[in-house]
Amino acid sequence: MKDHSHHVKHQGTLRILKTAKGQIEGIMKMIEDERYCVDISTQLLAVIALLKKANTEIINRHIETCVRDAIETGLVDDKIKELEQLMKHIEKNL
Amino acid sequence: MKDHSHHVKHQGTLRILKTAKGQIEGIMKMIEDERYCVDISTQLLAVIALLKKANTEIINRHIETCVRDAIETGLVDDKIKELEQLMKHIEKNL
Amino acid sequence: MKDHSHHVKHQGTLRILKTAKGQIEGIMKMIEDERYCVDISTQLLAVIALLKKANTEIINRHIETCVRDAIETGLVDDKIKELEQLMKHIEKNL
Amino acid sequence: MKDHSHHVKHQGTLRILKTAKGQIEGIMKMIEDERYCVDISTQLLAVIALLKKANTEIINRHIETCVRDAIETGLVDDKIKELEQLMKHIEKNL
Repeated sequence: MKDHSHHVKHQGTLRILKTAKGQIEGIMKMIEDERYCVDISTQLLAVIALLKKANTEIINRHIETCVRDAIETGLVDDKIKELEQLMKHIEKNL
Repeated sequence: MKDHSHHVKHQGTLRILKTAKGQIEGIMKMIEDERYCVDISTQLLAVIALLKKANTEIINRHIETCVRDAIETGLVDDKIKELEQLMKHIEKNL
Repeated sequence: MKDHSHHVKHQGTLRILKTAKGQIEGIMKMIEDERYCVDISTQLLAVIALLKKANTEIINRHIETCVRDAIETGLVDDKIKELEQLMKHIEKNL
Repeated sequence: MKDHSHHVKHQGTLRILKTAKGQIEGIMKMIEDERYCVDISTQLLAVIALLKKANTEIINRHIETCVRDAIETGLVDDKIKELEQLMKHIEKNL
């Protein structure tokens, strides 16, 4: 059940990344065609938003795994620390 | 013990916010003195970085509370969902 | 005329910063009262959004100054380079 | 000369986007291989950083064009307004 749910979520994230890849190809074409810079920037910001969405999905899968691992293994403090490190990384890089 | 640890962490976050408040007062003075815009912007970006740090500390306290609540109450799915909602909010607003 | 317009814009930015300062004081109170972490985080993200708005206003004043300076002084390449450096700084820190 | 310089800069931005596209393909493979979520997130944040860099290059080309157009056409206020709109868009979406 959990594996199945994870698999379904993976498919969603892969779809987002496939879309992002297609948009980047489109932006490369826009640059080659010397299109208006503001339109190119708007498209770039849209891809960045898509990748942030993919990142949230990955993070959320990680949170779920950590919480369930904490319960199964009893290594609660370790799992909390692992999530806290990730949040610091996101703070600096999102 | 947990309460004490939370209290200590609150003190740290309050200290960051006090610093941020002082920096904002400094920036208001810079604007009144018609200082160089790039210097004002640099200071504003520094306060934003401080507030992101305070936000990570608050988020991390929330993660810890959620994980411990999940274990104590057994409402694992609810707590995971609560954290996932928060991540989506951060994705859009950080 | 230009000075007057700059003065009016400064007043707007100062008002935003005054609001941000008041919100930070409110957040400090929320932390002392041990309010719900998600509500505190929401308020922090709102202050960050306000400070980004203040930063855009400062940046826009700088762009205006640079463009007018480029025309008046003829140091076009220098002023373009100055704006480009600022954009790189924003990319890394916003 | 200006056209040549623009062409060179386009090549640099296209190279960044080609790298970003390759990294996204790598991330898709990581997801299919069920790799560690934190490693996937780190890679996603790296692609986002690359795309922000590409965006800054596009913005900087736009700034240069706007400043030169302002001088050539005399439509200084229009060009300043165009840049200010762009900054507001970046503030909300970067």
